[in-house]
Amino acid sequence: MKNVAERALRVQREGNRVVMIVSAMAGETNRLLGMAHQISDVPDAREMDSLASTGEQVSAALVAMTIQKLGGKARSLLGHQVRVHTDNAFTKARIHAIENSRLLEVVNAGEIAVVAGFQGIDAEGNITTLGRGGSDTTAVAIAAAIGADVCDIYTDVDGVYTTDPNICPSARKIDRISYEEMLELASLGAKVLQIRSVEVAMKYGVPVHVRTSFSDKAGTMVVGEEGLEGVVVSGIAYDKGEAKVQLVGVTDRPGVVAKVFGLLAEKNVGVDMIIQSPSRGGGSTTDVTFTVAKTDLTRVKEVIEATATELNATVEYDPDIVKVSIVGLGMRSHAGIASKMFGLLAAEGINIQAISTSEIKISCIIHSKYTELAVRTLHEGFGLDKASVTGM
Amino acid sequence: MKNVAERALRVQREGNRVVMIVSAMAGETNRLLGMAHQISDVPDAREMDSLASTGEQVSAALVAMTIQKLGGKARSLLGHQVRVHTDNAFTKARIHAIENSRLLEVVNAGEIAVVAGFQGIDAEGNITTLGRGGSDTTAVAIAAAIGADVCDIYTDVDGVYTTDPNICPSARKIDRISYEEMLELASLGAKVLQIRSVEVAMKYGVPVHVRTSFSDKAGTMVVGEEGLEGVVVSGIAYDKGEAKVQLVGVTDRPGVVAKVFGLLAEKNVGVDMIIQSPSRGGGSTTDVTFTVAKTDLTRVKEVIEATATELNATVEYDPDIVKVSIVGLGMRSHAGIASKMFGLLAAEGINIQAISTSEIKISCIIHSKYTELAVRTLHEGFGLDKASVTGM
Repeated sequence: MKNVAERALRVQREGNRVVMIVSAMAGETNRLLGMAHQISDVPDAREMDSLASTGEQVSAALVAMTIQKLGGKARSLLGHQVRVHTDNAFTKARIHAIENSRLLEVVNAGEIAVVAGFQGIDAEGNITTLGRGGSDTTAVAIAAAIGADVCDIYTDVDGVYTTDPNICPSARKIDRISYEEMLELASLGAKVLQIRSVEVAMKYGVPVHVRTSFSDKAGTMVVGEEGLEGVVVSGIAYDKGEAKVQLVGVTDRPGVVAKVFGLLAEKNVGVDMIIQSPSRGGGSTTDVTFTVAKTDLTRVKEVIEATATELNATVEYDPDIVKVSIVGLGMRSHAGIASKMFGLLAAEGINIQAISTSEIKISCIIHSKYTELAVRTLHEGFGLDKASVTGM
Repeated sequence: MKNVAERALRVQREGNRVVMIVSAMAGETNRLLGMAHQISDVPDAREMDSLASTGEQVSAALVAMTIQKLGGKARSLLGHQVRVHTDNAFTKARIHAIENSRLLEVVNAGEIAVVAGFQGIDAEGNITTLGRGGSDTTAVAIAAAIGADVCDIYTDVDGVYTTDPNICPSARKIDRISYEEMLELASLGAKVLQIRSVEVAMKYGVPVHVRTSFSDKAGTMVVGEEGLEGVVVSGIAYDKGEAKVQLVGVTDRPGVVAKVFGLLAEKNVGVDMIIQSPSRGGGSTTDVTFTVAKTDLTRVKEVIEATATELNATVEYDPDIVKVSIVGLGMRSHAGIASKMFGLLAAEGINIQAISTSEIKISCIIHSKYTELAVRTLHEGFGLDKASVTGM
C-alpha cells in the first residue's frame, strides 16, 4: 500500500494530475465470496455485488489514508460517487458511461483521486461489479472518460512477452504492441490484461502501459496500429484449456450440423474452432470436429450423446490437445505465413489436427505433449528470439 | 444471521411490511478501524467513514442472502440507496432527512428491505457515519420516515430495567416508559439505547420496543407520555464515569467563573454538574465544584491549573465519585421526592457531595464506595422492587 501511494505521489510531483484505480487486497474478495457461499450455493447476484464491492471500497479508503500520511492530498471515490454507469448484469456488468466531473474536480484541486475499481451502478443505483479482474477495465474506461495521456496498469509481470517465458527461455518483452494483437494474445491465453479492458482501450484509443509494480522499468505499450510498423509475427500464444470433440459419420443432411451447435448454444457452451470434412466412414456422411473449453466437457456430453445416436454418428473426445497460435499485424500484408507455420511444425514431426485463421492470427490444434516444442520452434522460426528493428 | 432472518420473515408472515436495519458483525468495525490505525494515528475522517461503512454493507448483503435462502424475498439498501441525508460531520454525522420512496417501493413489492445502519450521505454524496451505535438511530429515523407502527430494537438485554440488575437483584423490567424518562436513564448510564435514537423517537413519536434478540418475549415499550400514567420514580441510574473538580477560594469577582468554563468549552470538555458556594476559606471568595468525564481529566488539568494560580485558588480532584439519579415523570406533580431521596441516603450514612435536579430527575454525587448501597436503598425506598399498578 505504501509502495503504490509513493508511486502515485511521485507521478504527481512530476507534474501530472493522477487518478488511481485500486483492486481489493489479496484474499479479500475470496473472503467475501466465501461468506456468501456459506449461506447459499447460488447467492443472489445483486447482493453478491453489494458484498464484493466492499473489497475495493476498503482498499480505496486505506490507500487514500496512506497518501495523506505521506503528506499528500487524496480522496477515495466509489462507483456511485464517480458515477460509473453500467448495465444491470450483476457480477458481470458492462460499463455504459463514466461521468468525469467529480474526478476532474478532485484532480484539479491537486488531490489524487483513488477510485475503487471493479464497481459501478446501474440505472436504479444498485451496485454492480464488472466481474473478476474488472479493475483493469475500470482503469481504461476512466482514462478514456477524462482523456488521460496514458493508463498505467501495474501487474506482477513486467510486460507482454513474445511468448510464455516459462516454456521458452528466449521469450522477449515486447516494447509496443497493437490493441488487435493484444486482444488475440490475451484471448489465446496470455493472461496479462483483461480482454474487455483492451477492447475499451482500442475503442477510445487509450494508450495502455502494462508494467510491473516492483520497479520503475518500462513495460509494454499497447497502442493503436498507427504508431507501429507491423511486424509479421509479434507473439506466440498457447491454450491448454480446450478439448476436441469429433462427431464421426454424421448423415450429411441440411440442418444437421446447425442442430448440433444450436443445442450447445442453448446449454451456454462456447464453441471455438469448427471443422467439417467428408467422413472417414465414406458415403454420404460427414465428420464434424470442434473444440470447447475443457470445463464444458461434461455439459457437451449430455447434449451430444443423445444427438449422436439420433444421427447414427459416433462421438470421440480428446482433452489432450493444445491450441498454438501465431499473432501479428503484418500477416495481413505478408503471404506465406501460414505455410511457413505448418512447415515449421511438420519439420518437428508435429501433426496438425485442426487449423483456424483470422486476419492477424493462425491457430493450430496439436497433441498437448508437443506444447513446449511447438512454441519454441515457432518462436525461433519467426525470429522472435532476436531483438527486432521493426515493432519498436 | 439465520436467527434475525427467520424473525424478519415471521414478522412479515404476520401481515407486516418489514424494514430491517443491520449493524456490522461482531468485531468487524474494530477490524476495519485497526487497519486504518496501522496507517495513521489520526486517519482522515472522510476516509474513515467510507472504510467503516463497509461493515454494515457486508451485513446487509449477507442478511438479504440469508432471507432469500430461507425462501423469502429481500433486498439490501445502503445509505446512498435509501438516501439517508446527513450533515458532513464525518464519523459523527447527524441525519437531516430520509427519503422513503425507495424503501416503500421495496416493501410494497413484498420484499424485506435490509438497510445498512450507521451510514448516510452528505450533500456531495460522500459517505458519512453516525458514530458508534448509530444503527439504533438509523432504525428510529427510518421508522419515522416511513410512518412505521413500531420500531423494534433487538439488543442483548430483554428491556429497560428499574436499575442495574447486576448490583440490585430486585430490579424489574419496565413494561412502558416515556421518551423523557428513557433519555434521562440513558444519559445517566443505563446504556440500552443510544440517546440520539431516543431523541429522534420522541421528536417523531415513534414507538420503540427494546427487546432481546434471543427470545420472542416482550421487552420495554418507549412511548410518549400520553400513554402512561406517570409513576413517581420509574428508575434508578448511576454513572461512575465522572470525576469531581473543586476550585477552592476563588476571588468572587463578576466574570471569573464564566472564564473558567469558557476555557473548558474551548477544549471541548463537557461539564455536567456545577455548584458554586461561599468558600470554606471565608472572606470574599467562593468555591466552585463541577463534574467532568474521567476521560477528560487530563485536559481539565491543563486548563485549570494555570487559571487557578491566576485566581489565587487551589484545585482539588476526586475521581472516586458516583452520580446516582432517580428518574420519573411523576416528580413534576409530586412534592417531597427530593427530600425523600436525601433522607433515604442519609439514613444509610451516605454523605451527599453535590446535587442537581431537573423536572424529571434528581442526581446526587456520593463517594463511589456507596454505589451499590445507594442504588439498592433508593430502589427499595421508592418501591421499585414491587410490581407497580401504574406505569403499566
